Amino acid sequence: MSKPGIKVFAPATVANVAVGFDILGFAIDKPGDEIIVRKGKQPGLIITEIQGAEGKLSTDIMKNTAGFAAFKLLEALGETKRPIEMEIHKKMPFGSGLGSSAASAVAGVFAVNELLKTGLSKQDILSYAVAGEQIADGAWHADNVAPSLLGGMILIRDSETLDFKKLHIPEGLFAVVIYPHIQVLTKDSRQLLTETVNFKKVVTQTGNLGAFVAGMFTSDFGLIKRSLQDVLVEPQRAHLIPMFYEMKEAALNAGALGFSISGAGPSMFALCDNNLTAENIIIEAQKIYKTSKIKIDTYLSKINHEGAVRF
Amino acid sequence: MSKPGIKVFAPATVANVAVGFDILGFAIDKPGDEIIVRKGKQPGLIITEIQGAEGKLSTDIMKNTAGFAAFKLLEALGETKRPIEMEIHKKMPFGSGLGSSAASAVAGVFAVNELLKTGLSKQDILSYAVAGEQIADGAWHADNVAPSLLGGMILIRDSETLDFKKLHIPEGLFAVVIYPHIQVLTKDSRQLLTETVNFKKVVTQTGNLGAFVAGMFTSDFGLIKRSLQDVLVEPQRAHLIPMFYEMKEAALNAGALGFSISGAGPSMFALCDNNLTAENIIIEAQKIYKTSKIKIDTYLSKINHEGAVRF
Repeated sequence: MSKPGIKVFAPATVANVAVGFDILGFAIDKPGDEIIVRKGKQPGLIITEIQGAEGKLSTDIMKNTAGFAAFKLLEALGETKRPIEMEIHKKMPFGSGLGSSAASAVAGVFAVNELLKTGLSKQDILSYAVAGEQIADGAWHADNVAPSLLGGMILIRDSETLDFKKLHIPEGLFAVVIYPHIQVLTKDSRQLLTETVNFKKVVTQTGNLGAFVAGMFTSDFGLIKRSLQDVLVEPQRAHLIPMFYEMKEAALNAGALGFSISGAGPSMFALCDNNLTAENIIIEAQKIYKTSKIKIDTYLSKINHEGAVRF
Repeated sequence: MSKPGIKVFAPATVANVAVGFDILGFAIDKPGDEIIVRKGKQPGLIITEIQGAEGKLSTDIMKNTAGFAAFKLLEALGETKRPIEMEIHKKMPFGSGLGSSAASAVAGVFAVNELLKTGLSKQDILSYAVAGEQIADGAWHADNVAPSLLGGMILIRDSETLDFKKLHIPEGLFAVVIYPHIQVLTKDSRQLLTETVNFKKVVTQTGNLGAFVAGMFTSDFGLIKRSLQDVLVEPQRAHLIPMFYEMKEAALNAGALGFSISGAGPSMFALCDNNLTAENIIIEAQKIYKTSKIKIDTYLSKINHEGAVRF
C-alpha cells in the first residue's frame, strides 16, 4: 500500500433480515473489503495483487467479482483500454453469509468510478456491482450489493430492474453479527429451500414483513420485535449452523429485537434497540461457542449509512 | 328510524389490496351499514328490525354478525341481561367483497359500546367485532373489521393476537371501487386458492408488499404504482369476475396506481393519486360493463380515516 492511488472500503452486509428473503439487506461498519486502484502502465484493467484471499481468487478480471464489476463500468464508458491497476485486500471471510463477494464487487466498481471521476452516482453504478457479484454466485441479486454500495437498510422491490427503496432507520438501532468459523456454501444453502411453500405460512411471513417495514418507518421497536420472525427460510436452514437455536434463545433472552441467519449463513445477526443489549449478546455468543469449540468472530455496529467510501 | 337511539355507521372496506392477502385493508366513505340501538323493554339484546337484507339475515343475535359482536362485548362486561334493542339497516350488498359482514359486526358492537358509555376504546372492542364477523365467514380475520372500525389502511401483522398497524396515507390518495352485480362467495373464492405457492413468486410478492408499505410511509407514488402487483392471488381468482382484465387494463391506462380484486371479489378497486383519474376510471367501468350488460355500482372516495362513527 506504499504506492499512491484511490483507496476505497465497501462494507459487509446482512441480507434477508429474517423477513425479507432475497429482498432486504443492511450494511454494517465492519468487516469489509478494501481496494486500491491507480493509473497502470499498460492498456486495460489488471489486478496486480490480491491479499487475504489465500489464493482462492482469480486475478483474471473476467473471473474476479471486483475486476468484472469494474470492467462492466469501463465497458459502458468505452474505456476498457484505460490502463488501470487494481489491488484487492480481502478483509472478510468467504462463504460467511456477510456478502463477501458483494463487498468486493462494490469496492471494485466504486474505486474505478472514483479514479476516473466519471460523475456517475452510486445508483448509476449499482448494476455493474450486481454483475460483478453474479460471477461469484451465479444469481442476479442486489440484497447484499445495494446496501454495501449505498449504505443503510435497503428493500429490493425487483432485482431485475434494480428497483429499490432505503428504509428509515430508527435512532438507537444496533446490529450484532456472529460469524462461526464453519463453511456453508450459498449454493448448498439455496438448494435446501423447497420450490413451493405453504400459503398460510406466506400470509404469516408477509404480515411480519409488512409490519417490520412499518415499524422501521415509525421507529416502533415493539412492532419490529414482534415482526422479526422467519417462518419460511430459517427453519429450513438453521440445522446447518451448530448451536443456532441455543444462540437464538440466548440473544432473545438478552433482549434482542430479533435473531436469525445472515444471508445464506453461517453468520447470524441480531438487531437491538440499544448498545448494551448488543454487547450482552456478544458475551453470550462467546460462552456458547466456547463450549462447542467453534471459533467465532463478532461484530457490533449501528446500521452503516455510508456504504462504500474512499478513505 | 323515528324512535330515538344511538345511530352509527360502519364503512365498507377493501381487503387484500393486491399485495397483502389477508393482512391489508382500507376503509372507504361509502357504502356502509347503519345500526340503531336503544334501551329495550325486556332483559337482553334483541334485534327488532333488519332492513335491506332481503330476509337473508337472522334476527337471532347468536347467528347475526352485528348481534353476536355486540353480545360478545356485553358478555365481557357481564351485561348480557341489559335490555337493548337493535335495528340493522344493511346499506351494502352481501358477497360483494366489500366487507359487508365486517361492517355489520363493527356497527353492532360500536353502537352498543356507545349506548353503554363503557369508556372502552375502538381498539378495546376490536376482538368482539372480529368474533361477530367470524359468524359469517367462519374465519378469524381482521383485514376488513379493523379498517371498518378504526378507519385508514391497516396492516394486520397477526390475526390471532390482533396485532396491527395503521399505515401512513399519502395526501391525494383516492380509491375507486367497482361492484359488478354478480355473486362470488368468499368460501368458493377461498377454495380456489392453492395450498402451496411457488417460492419465487413469494419473493416477487414480498418485494412488492415491502415496497408498497415503504411507498405509503414516504408518499412515493411511483413506488406504490410499481408495487401494486399481485402475482399470487389475483391470477387464481380473476376469471370469477367478468371483464376483469379489460377493466384492469382500462384503469391502468387511465392512470391508476394499481387495480385488483377487493377482498374475495367480485368488487374491484383502483388506487389513484388524484381525483380526476379516479373519475375517469369510473367512466371506463361504465362503458365496459354496459356492453356486457352487467349492472355495476361505483364508489369514489379518499381513504376513510374515521371508520365507525355516530351520526
